[in-house]
Amino acid sequence: MNPLTKRSENYSKWYNEIVVRSGLAEFSGVRGFMILKPYGYSLWDRMKTILDKMLKLTGHQNVYFPLLIPKSLFSKEKEHTKIFSEGCAVITHSRLIKKNKNQEELIVDPDSKLQEELVIRPTSESIIWKTYKRWIQSYRDLPILFNQWGNALRWEMRTRLFLRTTEFLWQEGHTAHSTEKEAIEETIKILNIYTNFSEKFMAIPVLQGIKPYMDKFSGSEKTYCIEALMQDGKALQMGTSHFLGQNFSKAFDVTFTNFNGKKEYVWSTSWGVSTRLIGGLIMSHSDDKGLILPPKIAPIQVVIIPICYKKQHPPTSIHEISIKILNFLEEKGIRVKYDDKTIWTPGWKFHEYEMKGIPIRISIGKNEIQNEKVEIFRRDTCEKIYIPWINLKNSIPKLLDEIQKNIYKKAVQRTQKLILKSDHYNDFKHKINHSGGFIFAHWDGTKNTGKKIQEETEATIRCIPISNEKEKGKCIYSGKPSLQRVIFSKSY
Amino acid sequence: MNPLTKRSENYSKWYNEIVVRSGLAEFSGVRGFMILKPYGYSLWDRMKTILDKMLKLTGHQNVYFPLLIPKSLFSKEKEHTKIFSEGCAVITHSRLIKKNKNQEELIVDPDSKLQEELVIRPTSESIIWKTYKRWIQSYRDLPILFNQWGNALRWEMRTRLFLRTTEFLWQEGHTAHSTEKEAIEETIKILNIYTNFSEKFMAIPVLQGIKPYMDKFSGSEKTYCIEALMQDGKALQMGTSHFLGQNFSKAFDVTFTNFNGKKEYVWSTSWGVSTRLIGGLIMSHSDDKGLILPPKIAPIQVVIIPICYKKQHPPTSIHEISIKILNFLEEKGIRVKYDDKTIWTPGWKFHEYEMKGIPIRISIGKNEIQNEKVEIFRRDTCEKIYIPWINLKNSIPKLLDEIQKNIYKKAVQRTQKLILKSDHYNDFKHKINHSGGFIFAHWDGTKNTGKKIQEETEATIRCIPISNEKEKGKCIYSGKPSLQRVIFSKSY
Repeated sequence: MNPLTKRSENYSKWYNEIVVRSGLAEFSGVRGFMILKPYGYSLWDRMKTILDKMLKLTGHQNVYFPLLIPKSLFSKEKEHTKIFSEGCAVITHSRLIKKNKNQEELIVDPDSKLQEELVIRPTSESIIWKTYKRWIQSYRDLPILFNQWGNALRWEMRTRLFLRTTEFLWQEGHTAHSTEKEAIEETIKILNIYTNFSEKFMAIPVLQGIKPYMDKFSGSEKTYCIEALMQDGKALQMGTSHFLGQNFSKAFDVTFTNFNGKKEYVWSTSWGVSTRLIGGLIMSHSDDKGLILPPKIAPIQVVIIPICYKKQHPPTSIHEISIKILNFLEEKGIRVKYDDKTIWTPGWKFHEYEMKGIPIRISIGKNEIQNEKVEIFRRDTCEKIYIPWINLKNSIPKLLDEIQKNIYKKAVQRTQKLILKSDHYNDFKHKINHSGGFIFAHWDGTKNTGKKIQEETEATIRCIPISNEKEKGKCIYSGKPSLQRVIFSKSY
Repeated sequence: MNPLTKRSENYSKWYNEIVVRSGLAEFSGVRGFMILKPYGYSLWDRMKTILDKMLKLTGHQNVYFPLLIPKSLFSKEKEHTKIFSEGCAVITHSRLIKKNKNQEELIVDPDSKLQEELVIRPTSESIIWKTYKRWIQSYRDLPILFNQWGNALRWEMRTRLFLRTTEFLWQEGHTAHSTEKEAIEETIKILNIYTNFSEKFMAIPVLQGIKPYMDKFSGSEKTYCIEALMQDGKALQMGTSHFLGQNFSKAFDVTFTNFNGKKEYVWSTSWGVSTRLIGGLIMSHSDDKGLILPPKIAPIQVVIIPICYKKQHPPTSIHEISIKILNFLEEKGIRVKYDDKTIWTPGWKFHEYEMKGIPIRISIGKNEIQNEKVEIFRRDTCEKIYIPWINLKNSIPKLLDEIQKNIYKKAVQRTQKLILKSDHYNDFKHKINHSGGFIFAHWDGTKNTGKKIQEETEATIRCIPISNEKEKGKCIYSGKPSLQRVIFSKSY
């Protein structure tokens, strides 16, 4: 097998190759639509399981709303229609028929035209708020803390596996509250859950911020986000949490009777993360040999490979000790795979599991049997170590912890080196083009300046840091006064 | 709250009311589309978790294929286009625009017409087989045992919650094999998994059979099914497993090089169960007071209710013992809810959890504290028993087992009474109209006779029993000779 394109040669090519070669995903024949292969789906499933648990522990419940939304619902909230300026899938008919009796070719049946066009959900605020109107009457019905796991669709011109696909899998939360304070607290609570999930499980350090007003979600008052820095110095938005104010409750006329018997509009939030996170995971940790997965989200944490000749079954002694190790690691709750397939050589398997980013590889051959030790390969450092059998039970869980921490530490160090300041436009342009990174700089707060900087450097304002530290300065572009730095970066 | 309509008065009305009143689901504003509410979704999630585990233990892996399928792919397999005679969602455009600048009303942008129409998957054979062509070259690539959890859409004229909705959630399996024998074995293996899932977990007895040729899945060679009998004597198809022969591999030109170096077409299967199963669950066990859920799939198995006055918190003694019981039942792996909300009275809660079908209710008041006992209410028999605190740890798991068995036993007894034979058309019509049930009768094997019987009695051939017992006889309708009995029933 050919090695991957090196990251230093062509990062974008490396990315496309690693996604396909590690068996995560590939494009389908349908433009912009991705197929999640078993390894990619099991990774998403693992991420789902963890995040779902975090959301349930904070009182959220899962629901499922219709895939299709009547056209008229979208124009109810006046900014929300913006979602479609980039495109959506419009259903106009409900039947195909044969072009003529003898041919198999299908055409749209003109008699099946719908009275009102339906749109595949790009996001579900409109259909959900139409329903909340039916469910909310009194303060007793609040809060509503609902989440939905499903698919959504936004027509995209340029697509990239995981990072930007026309259909994507995600969770979208939609909550309703009786007070503004509670809704803002919910927005922040979710931002913190996303941050924890990203840092503690995906081992990706993030910055928390607020989107500048021109980039907020259409229909929201404020969009909070977490942003991470990829290996090539570009930013990736990992998740967003929107404070929607009373925009949707007013658009859909959703009021409740408060404790004092008065009617008020409901306050709300929405928030989501998607399969896009997998793109962030790949670009945060992986190397020229393939994926590197943090043990906490790796679908397989340990792979056991018996050393023997191709097309031969491993000798009984090797097989038996392998099964023993498999069993006691599984008893410890570790996700282990024992690969004794005879159609591939051990060398081929080593290569394959390095590509797939399995955190620990245990190999067992004749020498290992003689010495009652196994060879351990750590994917994150590519080190080999030898551990006596009897120590494995304790050593492997510890090693998994250590690998998790090490992968996170490396990502933190890499990110910190690229958290930069800039006070002059020339210096700013130099940094953007040479190192990339999160560049803290002053901005005059206008959409126009943001647009000019983007046109000239490709960098955009990723967010206003949530820490909100005040510091007087001058806009790097216009020289106008500014009260705090914002974060610029090129981005995915 | 008003009681439910009685089953004996109007079964169909009872069904619609119980779905909504128990908080499982309701129709959305979009015609034929259902909203799964938290309780309904958690039930589906529980079913998913169990079935997913069964599928993984038999070597299946999850994947995710695109939601949208190009029109041209459907006509590749010549029978498969039939799927659309009943309707589908056709996407013709990719953008909405404002009707005019000052109004918010949206119209379809005529400039966004697609080159080729796309259809929301009614089922995924066509997009999957187009992809399998890329993935399968050699016998080493086989078998492929993939499953997909997701949504699908079939335009329906008459819809009923869970039983028939335009969009539904389901799993669809799509496997590829090197031999006919292996593909048939897979079809039967899945039929057995569905049977086990239905009987052991959902507590619904089923009959296994093969659909008569005119009702097989479009594109299959043979459709195997499991059929269950509802309380009103009508049948419900619970799941299907299709042996597809080489139909799709030939349509999509998918060949593999066999062990001897020769090219052959691949053999295949597909199979699925959907949210429809929840309809079957409701109509198998529930009564005039509400749902009755088998403990193995109940999202909440035990509810603990403190007895105290409305709007008062329970006295410390009651609260403390409740929490103690909650904790040790959870430690035993039991799904427990402690409901100490003060806005509802205990009486209201009793009623609510009976409606929701929670298998066991534990109530704790002053008397219970004094006597160191709790009151236990079994939802399946509506019996009250008293158990000393110290025995709860052992009694509750045993009681849950007993309830599971009892619910299944009742369903078996009910079904067995309605497994009937008929040898004369008048007797047949009488049974169909009076008792309903599975009626074993002779059929001459023609589509026309099946159609006539359906027109005159509403009964259809549910399946040819898989046991395939031969018995010479005469068709109840035409009098022509027949070699085995088939199963007739009215159905959902």
